[in-house]
Amino acid sequence: MATTNLDSPSTFDLKSYLSDRSRQVEAAIDAALPVVYPEQIYEAMRYSLLAGGKRLRPILCLATCEMLGARTEIAMPTACALEMVHTMSLVHDDLPAMDNDDYRRGKLTNHKVYGEGVAVLAGDALLTYAFEQIATQTPQGPDGADPRQILKVVAQLGRAVGAEGLVGGQVVDLASEGMLVDEETLTFIHMHKTAALLEVSVTSGAMLAGASEGVVDRLRRYAQRIGLAFQIVDDVLDITSTPEALGKSIGKDVAAQKATYPRLWGLEESQRKADQLVADAIAELSEFGEGAQPLVAIAQFITARTH
Amino acid sequence: MATTNLDSPSTFDLKSYLSDRSRQVEAAIDAALPVVYPEQIYEAMRYSLLAGGKRLRPILCLATCEMLGARTEIAMPTACALEMVHTMSLVHDDLPAMDNDDYRRGKLTNHKVYGEGVAVLAGDALLTYAFEQIATQTPQGPDGADPRQILKVVAQLGRAVGAEGLVGGQVVDLASEGMLVDEETLTFIHMHKTAALLEVSVTSGAMLAGASEGVVDRLRRYAQRIGLAFQIVDDVLDITSTPEALGKSIGKDVAAQKATYPRLWGLEESQRKADQLVADAIAELSEFGEGAQPLVAIAQFITARTH
Repeated sequence: MATTNLDSPSTFDLKSYLSDRSRQVEAAIDAALPVVYPEQIYEAMRYSLLAGGKRLRPILCLATCEMLGARTEIAMPTACALEMVHTMSLVHDDLPAMDNDDYRRGKLTNHKVYGEGVAVLAGDALLTYAFEQIATQTPQGPDGADPRQILKVVAQLGRAVGAEGLVGGQVVDLASEGMLVDEETLTFIHMHKTAALLEVSVTSGAMLAGASEGVVDRLRRYAQRIGLAFQIVDDVLDITSTPEALGKSIGKDVAAQKATYPRLWGLEESQRKADQLVADAIAELSEFGEGAQPLVAIAQFITARTH
Repeated sequence: MATTNLDSPSTFDLKSYLSDRSRQVEAAIDAALPVVYPEQIYEAMRYSLLAGGKRLRPILCLATCEMLGARTEIAMPTACALEMVHTMSLVHDDLPAMDNDDYRRGKLTNHKVYGEGVAVLAGDALLTYAFEQIATQTPQGPDGADPRQILKVVAQLGRAVGAEGLVGGQVVDLASEGMLVDEETLTFIHMHKTAALLEVSVTSGAMLAGASEGVVDRLRRYAQRIGLAFQIVDDVLDITSTPEALGKSIGKDVAAQKATYPRLWGLEESQRKADQLVADAIAELSEFGEGAQPLVAIAQFITARTH
């Protein structure tokens, strides 16, 4: 029975799935962004875009599209766009006027290499190119996606990134530094800074596959839950991991007096809530049978990861 | 005869046309961006977006759409988006890491009021919201635009803003500071920093009206010429105008050793070239008859303006 597999993820090799997909995504990103004049901006964009990372957002998009029976080629431009937007938010958040980070994924941050001006512009260009990619590269027509669905993907991505999404979360995060915020504010920050983009990663894959609104909503709930779990685990790892494993400074949230879940709930309760969110997320996938294995395994991976 | 009017723009009252249209655009922008939680980011976006300005880009978009016989409602979301993108580029260009400007249109720049972090984020949110507006607010269907045309507008706007447009121009501009650049580089800077967005303002209005590729190309040539003329006149005004008339510091380009046309060609020859570009631009409009009056008058206004 299809549902059996949901309870026995050991039959699914997530590690090789993630590494295969991640390679595909990196090849697509690499091809989408050749270096032309003026070289410096393309190099700055590529520096952060090709600096590694789990490629979780693009992989969620591709996996959702495939689970619903559509070709992954239809979702690849959106998958690349999601990684561009995610990278933009990291480049801008690392700026001295924001989180002032010198290292990211074990490498110097964009502005430490290219200067602040170019780092701002590289983020702007990545953000813009994300929308351009979706609009120009998504296959249309009988073998592709409906142009109206592609416009919906553009709209949803816009919402996930702007003042109602990533940017809104970052603004509240900046304003909360040094304050002990309540649970509502902390959840607002993370639903916007992290969950919003994970959500559109999943729902865009569904829309491009032509899913019904009911299916899109179900998958949205899956994504919201793993999004919040992801952030809780991030906060936990900031305390319990090592800089070598994380590829970035640790204890930074504590030092910056940043609002975190462990600070609010304690470490153990934070981990328990993350586990519960993952279980709830997986429950949303029951109707999709074996095809949901990658999404189930990704959800489990989120709380099990150590970096 | 229709063409007679092209030679006698005095019959057309550009001043009231611009002020009517500018009021319409401001009402649409105001309505598109209500202030909700987290208020600070919406206030920062509105601060720069509603700080005045000629609204030249949205007006070009609306005027082109109307000239080709379509309702301006179809182009209004794109018109607002163009102003959002233009504002984003001003907010980010004014940052200390770039042009380091304290005043813009006679008011403190965004980062002087809200801080650098929020100014970066306000720009990001404006850029994102521009794409979202086009995708969600453009009327579709028989009374509206074809979704495939709307996707083309998203794509063209993306190109005009990213590394192939505004951002590419700004990167070369930053890298040229203190250097006496050649004409080719200077033209690259301005074709990208200024002309690219003026171009998409015109071509997007045409696409949304369902224009043929031939018509779009003709209007693209019009826009490229007025775009370059606009920048030449800007450079001239930086030398010849007063800070009161411009609403910003003057002589700044000279002080910053920036590449400008007057520096390359002298004042008189710069003005002559701008006049020639405007004449060439207007020549592209001959087939459109009386309906082209606003675009003709706008082209003439560009070289005649004193601020």
